[in-house]
Amino acid sequence: MTVSESAKIAKKASVLLASCTTEEKNDALKEIAIELAKRKEDIINANKIDLKRSLEEGVAEPLLKRLNFDEKKLKETIDGIYALISLEDPVGKTLLARQLDEGLELYKVSCPIGVIGVIFESRPDALVQISTLCLKSGNSVLLKGGYEARNTNGILAEIIAKATREKDIPEGWIHLLETRTDVNEMLKLDEYVDLIIPRGSNEFVRYIMDNSRIPVLGHAGGICHCYIHEDADLNMAIRIVADSKTQYVAVCNAVETLLVHENIAEAFLPVLKHELDKRGVVIIGCDKTRKFITAMEASEEDWKTEYLDLKLSVKVVKSISEAVDHINMYGSHHTDSIVAKSKEAASFFMNMVDSANVFWNCSTRFSDGYRYGFGAEVGISTTKIHARGPVGLDGMVIYKYKLIGSGHIVDDYASKRKSFSHVDLVKKSPV
Amino acid sequence: MTVSESAKIAKKASVLLASCTTEEKNDALKEIAIELAKRKEDIINANKIDLKRSLEEGVAEPLLKRLNFDEKKLKETIDGIYALISLEDPVGKTLLARQLDEGLELYKVSCPIGVIGVIFESRPDALVQISTLCLKSGNSVLLKGGYEARNTNGILAEIIAKATREKDIPEGWIHLLETRTDVNEMLKLDEYVDLIIPRGSNEFVRYIMDNSRIPVLGHAGGICHCYIHEDADLNMAIRIVADSKTQYVAVCNAVETLLVHENIAEAFLPVLKHELDKRGVVIIGCDKTRKFITAMEASEEDWKTEYLDLKLSVKVVKSISEAVDHINMYGSHHTDSIVAKSKEAASFFMNMVDSANVFWNCSTRFSDGYRYGFGAEVGISTTKIHARGPVGLDGMVIYKYKLIGSGHIVDDYASKRKSFSHVDLVKKSPV
Repeated sequence: MTVSESAKIAKKASVLLASCTTEEKNDALKEIAIELAKRKEDIINANKIDLKRSLEEGVAEPLLKRLNFDEKKLKETIDGIYALISLEDPVGKTLLARQLDEGLELYKVSCPIGVIGVIFESRPDALVQISTLCLKSGNSVLLKGGYEARNTNGILAEIIAKATREKDIPEGWIHLLETRTDVNEMLKLDEYVDLIIPRGSNEFVRYIMDNSRIPVLGHAGGICHCYIHEDADLNMAIRIVADSKTQYVAVCNAVETLLVHENIAEAFLPVLKHELDKRGVVIIGCDKTRKFITAMEASEEDWKTEYLDLKLSVKVVKSISEAVDHINMYGSHHTDSIVAKSKEAASFFMNMVDSANVFWNCSTRFSDGYRYGFGAEVGISTTKIHARGPVGLDGMVIYKYKLIGSGHIVDDYASKRKSFSHVDLVKKSPV
Repeated sequence: MTVSESAKIAKKASVLLASCTTEEKNDALKEIAIELAKRKEDIINANKIDLKRSLEEGVAEPLLKRLNFDEKKLKETIDGIYALISLEDPVGKTLLARQLDEGLELYKVSCPIGVIGVIFESRPDALVQISTLCLKSGNSVLLKGGYEARNTNGILAEIIAKATREKDIPEGWIHLLETRTDVNEMLKLDEYVDLIIPRGSNEFVRYIMDNSRIPVLGHAGGICHCYIHEDADLNMAIRIVADSKTQYVAVCNAVETLLVHENIAEAFLPVLKHELDKRGVVIIGCDKTRKFITAMEASEEDWKTEYLDLKLSVKVVKSISEAVDHINMYGSHHTDSIVAKSKEAASFFMNMVDSANVFWNCSTRFSDGYRYGFGAEVGISTTKIHARGPVGLDGMVIYKYKLIGSGHIVDDYASKRKSFSHVDLVKKSPV
């Protein structure tokens, strides 16, 4: 089957899937969980083939680790499905109910987006997580996983398709794409695909954004900042910077640039350096920074670089305004944190910094769907429309307006024979 | 100033504008209303120049009518500003408040999108309406109006910029672009412009969508349908079809294709023809239609055509499913209406038709921000993400997550020393 044929089938299925009840979707999710448990041996064996081949091909250690899908990972994945079942259905919520006139009622009701194309990295558990999120939110999905995980992904997709088919979920709601060429094909199918969610390297996400008319939800970079205000509790600042940088370095919400108010630079930077040295972090500093501590010299390029490594660029700033300007200019609009005592400073920072996540006195590493209590996350978005920040089920739906009359025509209102009442109602759409 | 310079200034202003209070914005809106009234003579004189030149250039009558900006239009426009002042501020709403752990609170707060580029047709009142909507929702705006209205647009933009400057709204939040070349320039500025809203012909909107990486909110077509179910009240059906087709033919929410269930075609179509003949509507029918009434022969192309004229294509269908399939295949996902007695049929139709506005027993012409009670409308969207259907103030904002801690770090949770509580709160963000 060509990608275009798959997408067309997925589109047809999405219309039917939009009408599935919460019970039907949850039943199917449960069936997936049961079948995954039953087919444990097959899954682990398929994964062993992927691991063996990747090892032989000299695939790097971190990637091998992510590729690994053992009994423990499978159990966590299955637990995730049961957690998803317990979450509220995002579809069919009445977001607005309004009487326009007697007998003429308007309802704004949440509904699935349609067909979502997801391109994800090497972790096979992502396939299960993403496809079950799509199912719960009533969306068809075209999936493209890492090439090195192809055996594992193949069997997982087969199990999911079979389990949902048996529970009367419309056939064709899930398709697994095989190659990069398939992805390029998908990017052209704006007639069938409503949204693309790419997860991967910055270059890859940018490539997707540049090569499709289809809206893209995601983040191309994670240049996150901590700003230490002049009145900050310096011990707190050290803790927060250390956690933001080193709790997990290879992720998008790790801090990359530290901004320090000049009035506390002398007191703060040597203590910070002592702490970061212990953690093996290399500091790359501006000229002012290097007056107070030993550091590599920062260039303009450093402010634009997402290290994803034990490296931190540091800049001394004259004011909170300079910090905000720096963040808005060089940042990724992802996550930025201020450490400050003053509520005014925090308010200024949080309102002026144009990022999806703005924090006060806590680590940048908190920007995550699980930590926010969303239960499940399809990714983090830095786009300015639709869904921003960690995206859970609520970010995977849109709405439609349902208007119910009894023969109402516009001419009656245009000619002033009737007029609108516009009274908000507390009720759900009856259809 | 180049378009790029204007956009950069608009971006800077947007950060400050995001922090303006409701009172500051409403004060500025009031000042705009006052100044527009004061400068009445200047505005009308500028408009006379545009009208005279356009008349000499042989501009078509409907366009001249839209270009006209007389005392009555100015009064309506000013009334619109006062109505906008009375609407709730969409910015700063707390959409979610959640305790993640003791002393660690998450707030999802609505905020402006940033810089919006709006390209609109010849009506100068649109300039005032759009720019005041942007101001109220805290967004900077780059405006491009019709070339034939350039004198009127120039003075209106000047008055608005001056009035808001005097009320301390950040300078540079509004810019008027001059030429089509400027628009092409703007389409490239995805670094500064967050959203494009094009209002104009289908070809034009499609051109914009095809030529920018910036998200586009709008609709490229308005192929709307009425479907008459077999159990419909036929008198009601006649009224609704006639209103949907003829109440105002040149608009996107007028019906273009009528679908009729075969079981009632014989009874319905002759009565319909009688009514549409009176109203001067030409019927273009499928083979089955032409068994019951005289009509021009419909081709495949007719189902894809937005006539915007006194023309209606008619197709007899075997079932409600065929009607839904036809609409999802040929429609614009804009507005589609079913006339039926059965609640089951209505529910099936409204859930299966993948359109922004799905109606039961009322005219397609109701899909409009004013009729929905939104107070003001920036346009109608058929996109599947962000805002769909008539877009009012609520569609012109996004949100950011504000997280407030007191030194919280992720390592405490990763190492299980602490755990998340995830308790929803009923309170507003304190900053």
